[in-house]
Amino acid sequence: MTTAQSPGSPITMIDRVASLLQVFDGHPRLTLAQIARQADLPRSSAHRILQRLVELGWVERQGYQYRLGLRMFELGSKVVQRERLHQACLPFMYALHRSTGLTVHLSTLMSGEVLHLERIGDWPERGETWRPGGRQPAVHSAAGRAILAHLTEADWPDLTFPPPATVYGVRTRTQLRRDLERVRDRGGVAVDVQGCTAGIIAVAASIGPSGGSLRAALSLCGPAETMPVQEAGDAVRIAAMDVWYAASGLTRRTARVPAITRAC
Amino acid sequence: MTTAQSPGSPITMIDRVASLLQVFDGHPRLTLAQIARQADLPRSSAHRILQRLVELGWVERQGYQYRLGLRMFELGSKVVQRERLHQACLPFMYALHRSTGLTVHLSTLMSGEVLHLERIGDWPERGETWRPGGRQPAVHSAAGRAILAHLTEADWPDLTFPPPATVYGVRTRTQLRRDLERVRDRGGVAVDVQGCTAGIIAVAASIGPSGGSLRAALSLCGPAETMPVQEAGDAVRIAAMDVWYAASGLTRRTARVPAITRAC
Repeated sequence: MTTAQSPGSPITMIDRVASLLQVFDGHPRLTLAQIARQADLPRSSAHRILQRLVELGWVERQGYQYRLGLRMFELGSKVVQRERLHQACLPFMYALHRSTGLTVHLSTLMSGEVLHLERIGDWPERGETWRPGGRQPAVHSAAGRAILAHLTEADWPDLTFPPPATVYGVRTRTQLRRDLERVRDRGGVAVDVQGCTAGIIAVAASIGPSGGSLRAALSLCGPAETMPVQEAGDAVRIAAMDVWYAASGLTRRTARVPAITRAC
Repeated sequence: MTTAQSPGSPITMIDRVASLLQVFDGHPRLTLAQIARQADLPRSSAHRILQRLVELGWVERQGYQYRLGLRMFELGSKVVQRERLHQACLPFMYALHRSTGLTVHLSTLMSGEVLHLERIGDWPERGETWRPGGRQPAVHSAAGRAILAHLTEADWPDLTFPPPATVYGVRTRTQLRRDLERVRDRGGVAVDVQGCTAGIIAVAASIGPSGGSLRAALSLCGPAETMPVQEAGDAVRIAAMDVWYAASGLTRRTARVPAITRAC
């Protein structure tokens, strides 16, 4: 929702700063020329804004390159930590990670994608989309499908269907509806078999009551060859329920995660 | 370094946006009146800037309250993840956490404070300064003193000596120098016994060669009653060395953390 503004107006200036900072998403280090081009700003404006952002700690300069500064990290960290849900999740996420050895994500639905808010586990080592702050298409992600299955179709955001990573992925709205039926049959557990990333299986369960406003899910991911899908699904479903009890201030606070023996 | 600017100049506008966003540091939710007062902005300007920031996803509005938006979290997450050191640290941090049961931090020196870049472990549950994005005075923190011991005094930032949490803490520059001697005698391992927070002991080791530009440390923290100080110190010193080898692209890549039996 951009309103027409004169070039010198305050709103235009906010947009310039925002578009300048946003070019660093996906590009850790950039030169002034690259920043000006990608943010569609005159080089002199970009330089002036950058200088001030460097003084404020929002951007750092290293030689001829610029990158986001630690002040952005500091402020950004507060966004997730302020949430009662995040605080309630952490002990359960660590318990899940300890008992399964798998990587645990807490994710939320944002437009047609899931955004990972927290991750416990250092696998997969590569793959930016699996890191905290990373996004994945909701229709390909187990977390996304667990959340969608909890909503009526009228409450779905606009969904896109980019090509999945392998032939096992969801390609159409009809396939998605069929998959969500299976999610509901499994008591809310969504399974993604290499649709998001080749070699990775993920299982997820939505947090909170069906149709609720939370739009968040817990998930476990692991290597396709060794992932104990059934047991991981049971564990994540129970943990998602327990997180909800803990976040609502009800009694079932202690992590009770069944141990899983992995095939590897 | 603020230069005098006319109220409508672009630089003033960047400062207004920055000061507005910065009021959320320490205050998760604020009303328009609170934001305007704390950012020292006219209410009408604050309202106009906030409206645009909400449209951009940098701020979220809930009823009469505003809070930082998920877009800040997304961008902020990229700041730490881009670092080779962070990526090299993660496997060693998880190995340390698994073998000791203690909480592991990766921290860096910023002015006279340490800023926690990563944390593995859900203890202590409370205490914002121990979370990722949290800061602690360098002179009170084990990580801070491990880094300071690695630098010549001429390279120290300006240090402040706020009152420590207990009588065990460092109060003066003379006490600090004496403590840093002990850190060097221990092969670089700094120990903080409840100087930062009552009830918490932390041990830390600096990453990289003495006098280097990295200014980062690994640390372990645990409850004062049960913390195995000597063993934790050995483990963190070895891990910090291994992280440095891994980050430098040298060979010693595998985590080799000795198991620790905790007293509790």
